[in-house]
Amino acid sequence: MKDIRIFLSDLDGVWTDGGMYYDNEGNELKRFNTADSAGVLFLRMLDIPAGIVTGEDTEIVARRARKLGITILHMGVRDKLSVVREICGELECGLDEVAYLGDDIIDIPVLEKVGLSAAPANAPAYVKDKVRWVLDKKGGEGVFREFVEKYLSEKGLLEKAINLYLSGIK
Amino acid sequence: MKDIRIFLSDLDGVWTDGGMYYDNEGNELKRFNTADSAGVLFLRMLDIPAGIVTGEDTEIVARRARKLGITILHMGVRDKLSVVREICGELECGLDEVAYLGDDIIDIPVLEKVGLSAAPANAPAYVKDKVRWVLDKKGGEGVFREFVEKYLSEKGLLEKAINLYLSGIK
Amino acid sequence: MKDIRIFLSDLDGVWTDGGMYYDNEGNELKRFNTADSAGVLFLRMLDIPAGIVTGEDTEIVARRARKLGITILHMGVRDKLSVVREICGELECGLDEVAYLGDDIIDIPVLEKVGLSAAPANAPAYVKDKVRWVLDKKGGEGVFREFVEKYLSEKGLLEKAINLYLSGIK
Amino acid sequence: MKDIRIFLSDLDGVWTDGGMYYDNEGNELKRFNTADSAGVLFLRMLDIPAGIVTGEDTEIVARRARKLGITILHMGVRDKLSVVREICGELECGLDEVAYLGDDIIDIPVLEKVGLSAAPANAPAYVKDKVRWVLDKKGGEGVFREFVEKYLSEKGLLEKAINLYLSGIK
Repeated sequence: MKDIRIFLSDLDGVWTDGGMYYDNEGNELKRFNTADSAGVLFLRMLDIPAGIVTGEDTEIVARRARKLGITILHMGVRDKLSVVREICGELECGLDEVAYLGDDIIDIPVLEKVGLSAAPANAPAYVKDKVRWVLDKKGGEGVFREFVEKYLSEKGLLEKAINLYLSGIK
Repeated sequence: MKDIRIFLSDLDGVWTDGGMYYDNEGNELKRFNTADSAGVLFLRMLDIPAGIVTGEDTEIVARRARKLGITILHMGVRDKLSVVREICGELECGLDEVAYLGDDIIDIPVLEKVGLSAAPANAPAYVKDKVRWVLDKKGGEGVFREFVEKYLSEKGLLEKAINLYLSGIK
Repeated sequence: MKDIRIFLSDLDGVWTDGGMYYDNEGNELKRFNTADSAGVLFLRMLDIPAGIVTGEDTEIVARRARKLGITILHMGVRDKLSVVREICGELECGLDEVAYLGDDIIDIPVLEKVGLSAAPANAPAYVKDKVRWVLDKKGGEGVFREFVEKYLSEKGLLEKAINLYLSGIK
Repeated sequence: MKDIRIFLSDLDGVWTDGGMYYDNEGNELKRFNTADSAGVLFLRMLDIPAGIVTGEDTEIVARRARKLGITILHMGVRDKLSVVREICGELECGLDEVAYLGDDIIDIPVLEKVGLSAAPANAPAYVKDKVRWVLDKKGGEGVFREFVEKYLSEKGLLEKAINLYLSGIK
């Protein structure tokens, strides 16, 4: 496996369990999982950016991205592969240096092209058939972090990332 | 099995896990699952309408239906079979051309009459006894999509629907 | 078992999964389950009142009780057994004609005295040790309905209740 | 095991399941579990204080702490071990008299130093490797209470605590 230059992912069903909470007054909520934030931190310590490419377009997602310091955020996207190609252009990296985590049909064109593809445990069979790694966790359980940790583990970098994290605390 | 002309369903316990979130200020929330939206899209690509027939009457449901482009929406319904008959009248189709997914007693009269009946895995035994298909997913886990996909799969149409979806992305 | 004259229950951990959602603006939410509403309806059709005795005191619970037509509602209760005795006094029934569903220590004095006691599957062992029925469902999964249905089933009344429900729809 | 003088814990992933609910208007929610409140009460009856040391800083947590009568609350903490040492200084107790429950990397420095360390069942393996007790419950399921009850049980104090609780009701 080539070294990954950027981790990208879908949002709903990955960073969340797919839940969309609607109220009677036009408001909406999504449930994120604090566990995923360490995945972003690990990547940052290793100078690998994280990004989100989602079909939805809500202030919810923009706020969550700001909280986690994720600046590569593309919302309201229909053709995700085109957007991923653009991101690669800006980073001057190849699709084979991209890791992507997605859970649904709309993610398939990207999952088929990137260097490292993954899906949560509860993705449909016809999505899981397309990816290199079917992860243990479901969407919203911290599956983005699992994806990052599995990659770091394969590359022998996980312990380094944890130690960098711990040394940064003090 | 006859070709299905319309997919109808209950809402609470099907599109949701039955959860009704109340706050202290008169507001209420329901949790939908983004996974179900692909079920509606598959049907649309095959020119099969989707509709909701529910006993509840909330702006929450109206908003979710608008988001998914579901125009057949009957709320505050007590006698669901009468409403389903009306819908059939408008579509000029028979009850045996209707697919219906429901999870509770109020759905039994419809489930007993339609061409294709189904219930989520967590419906009461006396509802599951009445339906043709007991699905694998529980309410709120994407069981409407499972219902649609299982039907399309039986008819040999699932791959076509996925490909139409994918070709629409580009 | 004597015929039960009233079904009483705790709220948090029974009608909910124990979840208390707090926001940043002083608001709070609880998640109820629509499945439980049929339990209340079954009892009403058989002229058995349902009531709630809870340590919490929130508008949330008052709203949910109104929605379900539950008029016997005691909130902010510390000594639940005294309240249950009062309710029995008003109904002129004995404690042995009361069914009570509770999940925590505060419910033990009542659970030890009533005619029919029950706890959700996820109650602590030292609560489950005190009750006649440990139910299959956890709090928030529709365990109040399970309690009612199990009683009706034991008394040979469940089918009658379902049929009354169905005949009321038309 | 030495007698514990104070129970401290992380918040997100311990008192909650890690879920962070964001809406479109800048508000946020966390889901607590009423089951944990008995843990705090047990400790209070035995004159053992409970405290929270968390990296987050939200009004949500301050409200929950007030509701439970927890006055030792440190928010926005990065170096948790320093804060725990400060708390020990104020209480004039040693780190070996502190019990701490945490679920993530940021908790490791504390978990390695205190007298009694524990993690929820769903913490990462590299956190669970550091603790004395891996508990049965996941975050948000009442794992703080499980921690307290397990300690009281080991010390032969659980029955006493339950009886004090029950005698306080009447």
